[in-house]
Amino acid sequence: MEIVLATGNPGKVREIEEILKPYGLDLVSLAHLPQVDSPSETGKTFEENARIKADFYAHHFQKPALADDSGLEVEYLGGGPGIYSSRFAGPEATDEERNKKLLTLLKGVPFSQRRAAFICVAILVTPEGEELKTEGRLEGYIATRPAGDQGFGYDPVFFLPEYDKTTAGLGKQKNKISHRYRAFKAMGELLSRQGY
Amino acid sequence: MEIVLATGNPGKVREIEEILKPYGLDLVSLAHLPQVDSPSETGKTFEENARIKADFYAHHFQKPALADDSGLEVEYLGGGPGIYSSRFAGPEATDEERNKKLLTLLKGVPFSQRRAAFICVAILVTPEGEELKTEGRLEGYIATRPAGDQGFGYDPVFFLPEYDKTTAGLGKQKNKISHRYRAFKAMGELLSRQGY
Repeated sequence: MEIVLATGNPGKVREIEEILKPYGLDLVSLAHLPQVDSPSETGKTFEENARIKADFYAHHFQKPALADDSGLEVEYLGGGPGIYSSRFAGPEATDEERNKKLLTLLKGVPFSQRRAAFICVAILVTPEGEELKTEGRLEGYIATRPAGDQGFGYDPVFFLPEYDKTTAGLGKQKNKISHRYRAFKAMGELLSRQGY
Repeated sequence: MEIVLATGNPGKVREIEEILKPYGLDLVSLAHLPQVDSPSETGKTFEENARIKADFYAHHFQKPALADDSGLEVEYLGGGPGIYSSRFAGPEATDEERNKKLLTLLKGVPFSQRRAAFICVAILVTPEGEELKTEGRLEGYIATRPAGDQGFGYDPVFFLPEYDKTTAGLGKQKNKISHRYRAFKAMGELLSRQGY
């Protein structure tokens, strides 16, 4: 059965298609469907925002739709920026400005208090209102300065002690451990068990 | 019909009873009921945590139960500390330590970027699983230093430009504008319309 991959971001589409390849799903991305305005992400959690998107496209196209929402939770900031990850330094700010703000907020804070997690929630909704949900996490620490030139977003400041690198320094390895990989791998398994 | 007021905090019980007095409800606090271990607040939003508590006591006592969850959201911190408000500087920290941490994080940040909101979500759940929900907000700014000697929690650093005071400097006025007042006043009206 055809599944709408409900993200408008071409980089994310490629990444998710790659993760889901082993499961032989019939995915169609938004770029290959008639254009429609995207819904407002008014949820208070990753889960609510992923559901808003999946729900919207499932009803609009009358096909099962798969969406995700993700972000960075920093323990020292009481869970922020969380769902505000992409607009943490204002709606027009760059990745670099967001990372700079984060490092400034954590300036002088000892390593033991710099714990953080990348979180991704993936949700599939059918036009009949059925729902499947998976979550992926990647636990790490906020670095004291940016490092690594791959990845995007908060990758240059998200440090993994077991690799002694930020996720921006991991190269292709990142795609086998990332929060998005974990959420969509679990989703792929769930979907293939359900006969998709 | 008797309603369980599902909070173990005596100060909060008094405050809520005071707000709900005009509605002539039949409230019974946990202190007047057989003791029971409180449920874990594992929710990801104020709403989920309030629901966990109301649900738990409604089922345990087989009476409608009214609970709330509240906290401070700081825009500059991407919505933190939010549901982590009471353990923002570690589980054993004092109000003073939490406020100090917040002021340090926002040191040098201009007033226009210090917007914050106190939020309270109140939920009543019946043993039959019906639910009523209200929310109260108080919008303000994080002060640059503590002021005022009344209130508690983040009150000394929560500044209201229209009063030129923090909520710790407002005295009894605070109880007529607070997030908790707004949530429970709306709940009182809802409950009296529903015949409680």
